[in-house]
Amino acid sequence: MKVEVIKNILGENDKIAGENRNFFAGKKICVMNLMGSPGSGKTTLLEKTLGKISEKIKVAVIEGDLFTAKDAERIENHNVPVVQINTSGGCHLDAPMVKKALQNLDTENLDLIIVENVGNLVCPAEFDIGENFKTVVLSITEGDDKPLKYPLIFKESEIAVLNKIDLLPFTNFDLTAAREDLTTIHPGIKILETSCTKETGLDEFCNLILKKVSDVKS
Amino acid sequence: MKVEVIKNILGENDKIAGENRNFFAGKKICVMNLMGSPGSGKTTLLEKTLGKISEKIKVAVIEGDLFTAKDAERIENHNVPVVQINTSGGCHLDAPMVKKALQNLDTENLDLIIVENVGNLVCPAEFDIGENFKTVVLSITEGDDKPLKYPLIFKESEIAVLNKIDLLPFTNFDLTAAREDLTTIHPGIKILETSCTKETGLDEFCNLILKKVSDVKS
Repeated sequence: MKVEVIKNILGENDKIAGENRNFFAGKKICVMNLMGSPGSGKTTLLEKTLGKISEKIKVAVIEGDLFTAKDAERIENHNVPVVQINTSGGCHLDAPMVKKALQNLDTENLDLIIVENVGNLVCPAEFDIGENFKTVVLSITEGDDKPLKYPLIFKESEIAVLNKIDLLPFTNFDLTAAREDLTTIHPGIKILETSCTKETGLDEFCNLILKKVSDVKS
Repeated sequence: MKVEVIKNILGENDKIAGENRNFFAGKKICVMNLMGSPGSGKTTLLEKTLGKISEKIKVAVIEGDLFTAKDAERIENHNVPVVQINTSGGCHLDAPMVKKALQNLDTENLDLIIVENVGNLVCPAEFDIGENFKTVVLSITEGDDKPLKYPLIFKESEIAVLNKIDLLPFTNFDLTAAREDLTTIHPGIKILETSCTKETGLDEFCNLILKKVSDVKS
């Protein structure tokens, strides 16, 4: 019975996700779903990314949080249109929430929408929102065992960002093991090492995004 | 309709949680529900805690993970009875899972069960498992904005452990702001600063746990 209900909810979500996907395709907008644990550094990475790409392409951001507009306020400082979704305790964004957020966004001539999901390494991976691709951010301080412990989110993501790489010397994180586990779970996944404080790997991340945007346009 | 279904699931959970609570009370076993983000350091804190208290009291551990028995294997090395619950993708432990795990645990003469929940700052807080008290672990590297962004888990927890305090100099974490926010969300919450690598604050944490165990016995 419980399974039945969950299936129905997911079925409804997938229907709306399909509508979102058609909408984005019609306008040739590329959409990235940015996921990761609380405190993995998603918002800071997003701020750094906007600083580098917002003069080259037209970007908007959808911010998902349980409560508060703290992250949306940070994004607004970068002069990028941003819509805040508050899930009121909900542990992930779903396709209907994103569809509703689009009503508050001027999507004319937009090239890219970055959707920052709720901080959670489990539930967001289960819900298609109609994005073109998913990126998961894993902070070095979280430990190298996370890919095997939370495989779905890494399996679903085209890019895995190993963030806060500057803190590597202060942890026992095994980069080789993490890379091997990621590749086992998701052969072909693109693995980047970034630090927002030391400005490491950010150009590589931005170039991957710009390539995806260009693929959608062509 | 969705709300109705969720209410029913929670109602069933609360019923079993009550049964678990009665079972623990009958045997005078204290139960701590240990929660926090993936990589906040729950398992390492647990290992350090077991090292300090397992000669004083009889402890067992229930380990919750989506997949793998990595954490349970780490606990087994400390010669403490441990039962692994794999949620197969589920984002939290619930009362029926804990009830089932108890069948595989010798609860005679046990003083304390520590339940390490799935790494997640959202969903575990919503499910009563019949514990005596909840502890939330927040890593300094996750950022000081987390209490306001994920208030429920901090509201529900009697103890908030600010872990990896040794990494404070390498972050912009504002300890004063975090403490203020925690106290606003949950007046009276006990806030500890710990480092498992530098062995900071661990005795204080163990003493709080031993006090709770002693309260249950008397």
